[in-house]
Amino acid sequence: MEKKYVIGIDLGGTKINGALADLEGNVISQHIIPTNASEGEEKVLNRIFQVIEKVLTDASKTSEDIKAIGIGSPGPLDAKKGIIISTPNLPFDNFELIKPIKEKFNIPTYLDNDANVAAIGEHIFGAGKGTENMVFITVSTGVGGGAIINGKIYRGNTCNALEIGHTTIEKDGPRCNCGNYGCVEALASGTAIGKRANEAVERGEETSLKNYKELTSYEVFKEAKQGDKVASGILDSCLNYLGICVANIIATFDPEMVIIGGGVSHGGNIVFDKVREVVKERCLESMANACSIVPAGLGADSGVIGAVALAISESDD
Amino acid sequence: MEKKYVIGIDLGGTKINGALADLEGNVISQHIIPTNASEGEEKVLNRIFQVIEKVLTDASKTSEDIKAIGIGSPGPLDAKKGIIISTPNLPFDNFELIKPIKEKFNIPTYLDNDANVAAIGEHIFGAGKGTENMVFITVSTGVGGGAIINGKIYRGNTCNALEIGHTTIEKDGPRCNCGNYGCVEALASGTAIGKRANEAVERGEETSLKNYKELTSYEVFKEAKQGDKVASGILDSCLNYLGICVANIIATFDPEMVIIGGGVSHGGNIVFDKVREVVKERCLESMANACSIVPAGLGADSGVIGAVALAISESDD
Repeated sequence: MEKKYVIGIDLGGTKINGALADLEGNVISQHIIPTNASEGEEKVLNRIFQVIEKVLTDASKTSEDIKAIGIGSPGPLDAKKGIIISTPNLPFDNFELIKPIKEKFNIPTYLDNDANVAAIGEHIFGAGKGTENMVFITVSTGVGGGAIINGKIYRGNTCNALEIGHTTIEKDGPRCNCGNYGCVEALASGTAIGKRANEAVERGEETSLKNYKELTSYEVFKEAKQGDKVASGILDSCLNYLGICVANIIATFDPEMVIIGGGVSHGGNIVFDKVREVVKERCLESMANACSIVPAGLGADSGVIGAVALAISESDD
Repeated sequence: MEKKYVIGIDLGGTKINGALADLEGNVISQHIIPTNASEGEEKVLNRIFQVIEKVLTDASKTSEDIKAIGIGSPGPLDAKKGIIISTPNLPFDNFELIKPIKEKFNIPTYLDNDANVAAIGEHIFGAGKGTENMVFITVSTGVGGGAIINGKIYRGNTCNALEIGHTTIEKDGPRCNCGNYGCVEALASGTAIGKRANEAVERGEETSLKNYKELTSYEVFKEAKQGDKVASGILDSCLNYLGICVANIIATFDPEMVIIGGGVSHGGNIVFDKVREVVKERCLESMANACSIVPAGLGADSGVIGAVALAISESDD
């Protein structure tokens, strides 16, 4: 019997989001429960079992109907071995996640990190549909990425390819959480934007940003749109670095498309106009002209749709 | 009849170097003639014909024995269409190089740029033998690169992937020939090393470099080895940038190996020690530890052996 369905699981620090979908990505049933990460790895694993059972029941399907399960999780992880090595908001420590799921349900199960899963989702169902070579980057608290090369996700030797957030674009730039200086993540992430805003307020600059108790990139975008010059200046500087990051991606991968997702991308035109301007300034013209720079096509459910796409993509091999 | 030989052509601004080899890369016959580039594109094409005929005759082979011809040339070029778009030292202007060769000899013929050809050569016959994912960079007057991904050269959308020399690693760095600022090529190439040396002499710094009429990276390496502090300082600074470039490559590709070739790599330990030190400082530890950084394995004939490797690799598809 031909198996016509897959299950995608978006495993996050606060919730487990699971969906059963057909091979065109149409969701038949979906179930979301809290992760309760503090209860430990076995309990979280059992809650994943619970989500899988629930989406099966709700769709009136059995394991027999399911071609594959895809799981997206924060990393670092080993996609080939199906092991979550560690992650700040989940209790896993070198935990074999895939094996027990595969064994319990007798369904091929695949794991990958959030950024790769989002890249696969964008490639199969989102803005990157139909491309052969594309790079997805997510810009929020951190900066991560995934590359589709010759139609397939590129993982690299230790499953850490596209750690684009930790490439250096300013030799003596600010220190990054990773220990390095001048990383993209320390200069162009949502966190970096919020940090620059807090520094401006601490310096006593005349800005409407001082009216907030807590400053994140969200408030900086909001005040810049209201005409605050300090907020605009911060965005211009941070988005210039994001533009350098995208220009470097284009020079390196010569892709058909760079897709930008994550919280910062919701800033809209101000983000994309600046990034395109910097790319035009810094890239070889023919490569810049051949590459489109676009926002992510999948919305709030991109994590679980990406996991569905992972299941489809891996089981097609 | 099984075809057991290939021909490789290294097309350069001063000479055309051709070899007929077996599928293990053993050269059976080789012929080198001046390019005489100033005579124009048709004359150069005829000289390529002449080299192909000569290596066939010298090896007592005919077109029937040859599986494929591989040609390495400076770019920019379109490998898919077999067209040389333009190149500073050759007379070609959007010249269809491959078609007339294919038609004359009735042998499948493939074209690629120098850096990709060298990467394929290193992968099949050189330091990168047996790797699945590796990046080759050449550091001489310019900085170029080629990536082997899942065992195959990665060309990108417009055949310009791995323009690693034109990635930005210092936002407000010196202007590059490409028009951008702070490119790897403007900071870490042999040309950049020579330029820093000339600037030091012009500033009147106390250094043995002032005893040379013309200063290139060669003299800087030589004087640094003799203990000249200014020369050592220049190398330290430029090789720091080269280290940042390699660290960015590792963060991006997570490769098994980075191979460094080109004139600057002949500097030896001083180059590799510094690059490895910077990578250790800047890269995520697990990725840095999993990636070896090594000198190119092919010597003076790397261009023509790379072209042989291109012929083998493309005709195997």
